[in-house]
Amino acid sequence: MRRSQMLLPTLREDPKDAEIASHILMMRAGIIRKLDAGLYTFLPLGHRVLLKVINIIREEMNRAGAQELLPPILIPASLWRESGRYDIMGKEMMRLQDRHENDMVLGPTHEEVFTHIVRENVQSYRDLPLNLYQINTKFRDEIRPRYGVMRCREFIMKDAYSFDIDEAGLEKNYQAMREAYRRIFARCGLEVVPVQADTGNMGGSNSEEFMVPSSVGEETIIHCRSCGYVANVERAESKREFSSSSKSMLPLEEIATPNVRTIEELVAFLKVSVDRFIKSLVYKTDKGFVLVLIRGDFMVNETKLKHVLECVELEQASEEEVLQITGAPIGFVSPVNLKQKIKIVADESIPFMRNAISGANKKDYHLKNINPERDFVWDVVADIHEVVEGEKCPTCGEVLRSYKGIEVGHIFKLGYKYTEAMNVRVLDKNGQSITPIMGCYGIGVGRTIASVIEQNHDENGIIWPMSIAPFHGIIVPVNMSDSRTVEAAEKLYQQLSRRFEILLDDRDERPGVKFKDADLIGIPIRITIGKSFAEEQKVELKLRRLEEKHLVPLEEVEKVFEEWYEKEMAPYLL
Amino acid sequence: MRRSQMLLPTLREDPKDAEIASHILMMRAGIIRKLDAGLYTFLPLGHRVLLKVINIIREEMNRAGAQELLPPILIPASLWRESGRYDIMGKEMMRLQDRHENDMVLGPTHEEVFTHIVRENVQSYRDLPLNLYQINTKFRDEIRPRYGVMRCREFIMKDAYSFDIDEAGLEKNYQAMREAYRRIFARCGLEVVPVQADTGNMGGSNSEEFMVPSSVGEETIIHCRSCGYVANVERAESKREFSSSSKSMLPLEEIATPNVRTIEELVAFLKVSVDRFIKSLVYKTDKGFVLVLIRGDFMVNETKLKHVLECVELEQASEEEVLQITGAPIGFVSPVNLKQKIKIVADESIPFMRNAISGANKKDYHLKNINPERDFVWDVVADIHEVVEGEKCPTCGEVLRSYKGIEVGHIFKLGYKYTEAMNVRVLDKNGQSITPIMGCYGIGVGRTIASVIEQNHDENGIIWPMSIAPFHGIIVPVNMSDSRTVEAAEKLYQQLSRRFEILLDDRDERPGVKFKDADLIGIPIRITIGKSFAEEQKVELKLRRLEEKHLVPLEEVEKVFEEWYEKEMAPYLL
Repeated sequence: MRRSQMLLPTLREDPKDAEIASHILMMRAGIIRKLDAGLYTFLPLGHRVLLKVINIIREEMNRAGAQELLPPILIPASLWRESGRYDIMGKEMMRLQDRHENDMVLGPTHEEVFTHIVRENVQSYRDLPLNLYQINTKFRDEIRPRYGVMRCREFIMKDAYSFDIDEAGLEKNYQAMREAYRRIFARCGLEVVPVQADTGNMGGSNSEEFMVPSSVGEETIIHCRSCGYVANVERAESKREFSSSSKSMLPLEEIATPNVRTIEELVAFLKVSVDRFIKSLVYKTDKGFVLVLIRGDFMVNETKLKHVLECVELEQASEEEVLQITGAPIGFVSPVNLKQKIKIVADESIPFMRNAISGANKKDYHLKNINPERDFVWDVVADIHEVVEGEKCPTCGEVLRSYKGIEVGHIFKLGYKYTEAMNVRVLDKNGQSITPIMGCYGIGVGRTIASVIEQNHDENGIIWPMSIAPFHGIIVPVNMSDSRTVEAAEKLYQQLSRRFEILLDDRDERPGVKFKDADLIGIPIRITIGKSFAEEQKVELKLRRLEEKHLVPLEEVEKVFEEWYEKEMAPYLL
Repeated sequence: MRRSQMLLPTLREDPKDAEIASHILMMRAGIIRKLDAGLYTFLPLGHRVLLKVINIIREEMNRAGAQELLPPILIPASLWRESGRYDIMGKEMMRLQDRHENDMVLGPTHEEVFTHIVRENVQSYRDLPLNLYQINTKFRDEIRPRYGVMRCREFIMKDAYSFDIDEAGLEKNYQAMREAYRRIFARCGLEVVPVQADTGNMGGSNSEEFMVPSSVGEETIIHCRSCGYVANVERAESKREFSSSSKSMLPLEEIATPNVRTIEELVAFLKVSVDRFIKSLVYKTDKGFVLVLIRGDFMVNETKLKHVLECVELEQASEEEVLQITGAPIGFVSPVNLKQKIKIVADESIPFMRNAISGANKKDYHLKNINPERDFVWDVVADIHEVVEGEKCPTCGEVLRSYKGIEVGHIFKLGYKYTEAMNVRVLDKNGQSITPIMGCYGIGVGRTIASVIEQNHDENGIIWPMSIAPFHGIIVPVNMSDSRTVEAAEKLYQQLSRRFEILLDDRDERPGVKFKDADLIGIPIRITIGKSFAEEQKVELKLRRLEEKHLVPLEEVEKVFEEWYEKEMAPYLL
């Protein structure tokens, strides 16, 4: 492609609303442009990368035995009502009515549609297993779209859904996808870590996220260097040992704590260590209000809490609601002497506490010497705490670390949730009607590309892995007014384009502009036709990722280019 | 691919709601499935065809110098308000509000978005010409979706938009697209005719549709065999010669015509030839009511009428409205003595009429001896008639024919409509700010596939052109319980799959079922391993499109297959 003919608007300055490297560079390198909040266009340079990533995904999915199809994006609400998710999905799911006032949905995910397709077209165990996928546009009306294509409202996703007659079959499909994902990300030049994950409102039991370790990631990963345990903080566990106290129970005592509300303030005010406090938090859920208790040095993990409560919506209650239920404002709540009786969920840490401190359900007062069981009882005790760095590994007991990550893929064992809700039945070998078991497997395509840039850039721009680079090489004729330079560039362009994807920077721009742009857009191999060409018929070859420059006689360029290309491509050919 | 592992649900019976061959066969061959009215899933077999057609389109668009990008499907209404189309598009455009109650649109076409992208990223004549395209999902809420993917509500379209600094540039882009379309359809094995077309509410001046002649087409094409003139009836013209009558004008005369309303009834009742009547029709438009006059033997072409009136909405007025305006019910309307004064549009045929007959604006009465100019005047005279078979060619005067066609592509010279409305400015060579000129170019991908089937099928099923066939060959082992047959099939499958796309029908089904299915899904080359194999180690090769069968020794199959493949592919390699 000739640069002069390409829509490739590079920017010298960082755009104002871009915060992270990939977003900044995708804007600056003319890869994407914003149309509206969370809505981006892939410009021609970006589209070339998009097609390559899609192609890698398609090849590996097919290799793993999955079959591609293309269902509609627009889905009748009836299917979502059947699964029970129409009301659960909330505002993130985009909804509309058609001209006949039928409720429709823009698919944020496609469990219902694929389950329906299988229900309509599969009768017997002989038709299974199936692993069906699409590479298609999805819509999620994120409340705060950000970071460019990392978290946007319209995006391309590969999502696959497997159907098996039994758990052994599902396990096989799940492992095949796990391996396919490993290959896909490796071929894209992306380092990922499969991490144990929560299953969210997808339902199901077994799930891993493919995480790109990155300081700009929105996920927190808990990791044990010793045994390799790794999990999303949403579902991470730790080894917690609590022992019963031998101290005797002291009588309850009310203490005045005027305007002292937070644990930090209390620790400072009462000069008592933080693990002596009981945090008492009122939550509002779709199943009613609940009082949640946890030791002062722990934080509540709301994902775990949701599972314990089997609820969908969960948020901290408002000041008013707390006042009504407990009789006290936030900060002075206690499980002792609640005004209204509500469900109490206690973290595992609670039963072992002795002579603890919490609110008094009375403004500006706390209670000392609270003793669980003596002074209050709970309805449920469970692990609802959020694991933090420094806790002990649940597997081996060594110290846990945490780091941030970007979720680029997700594999799930969904179980029978959708096939049961939507009444999918097939005949097994014995002619018995059974319900198939499902898995689902997703990859965010745009987010994968952004993550590659997060991992592969320097202060000058992107450094594309050869496998997904928009062009393999870029030819930079330094002096466009020198006819011999132009001629040589043109000849090389013709020659190399026969087998490689080449960008010819034929613009009449200063060399500095051309070099800056070449670095910014990150083409793996740069061929410069400059001073050495005039002097000794040599052109300069340089890898974007290395500093070193090589002078090569014009007639040898093709051979050297091919060698370099193969060497650069090798790591991504699995 | 092994048939036993593929989601390929063929149907023995024609589905009830399918009327035309392509819809019936796409359902029966397991190519598509309906999700909801006008919403279809491409199943794996169909998806393979889809990818091949998309690939051909992409190759030819790139070859013609167009650049692919991918804008969002979801578009802020503000862009549509800028162009002035937000209110015009009506219910066919799907609309929704996002969580912040912003009005959004699901793109039915993308002029606004591409114009916006160019406005934001192009500054100078040096950045032009550009021809930008997408292959993306579109939404149009058709009032009556039908014929499967022929007319549906969600569909894949290739749409391109060109931007040039002047008309000469546009002409070049337009011709490049015209040639690309010729190549695309030829490579897909589709015979098309470029037909002069109306420009609809797209605006613009010059436009051609690529039509597939077909009895199930929804478009009518007017054609001259002699000079090659060909146009969509919406814009077709004819040579009409009207001469002034030498007859003297007779006095107006009211005649009783009780319950005689239609032209046919009048002709029978008054025993006067049809061309003596003036049809007087009241239309309701977004610019008010209008009385339309046309000679009794002509029909009104509402597309032409819309252009004359420069209106968007147009429909015949209701009985009540007609009564109010004319004083008479429908059937007795006349331009003479209208109750209310409204705009009158007369077809070119009207001024030449002498002593004509029309209504009397009075129930059960008509007027004889109406003479234009003497008895009424008009506001506009124009060609608003619909050309029919038998009229004279506007170019050469020979007899025009008509036939039905399916529109699969459309190329337009849009002119300045969008660039002006959306204020796109670039600097020309002299540093002057100018407005670029646009073209737009669309192909319906699903409709192209359906049209290929309309042109390529027999009573047994589809006959795919090699270029877009889902598989190149199908291997049918007749007796799956014969281990030597199975072994030979497997060996051939492995051998041929190295270079070709092969479907192995490894199901344990009766031979009749397998042959019927092979014909139905229309794979170009069939390899049968049957009786001749057991007897003399020969397998049978047969082209789907021919009756002839060839017995080939097992070891020669690959060579023969390759020869056949190349021969079958040749017509589509341009």
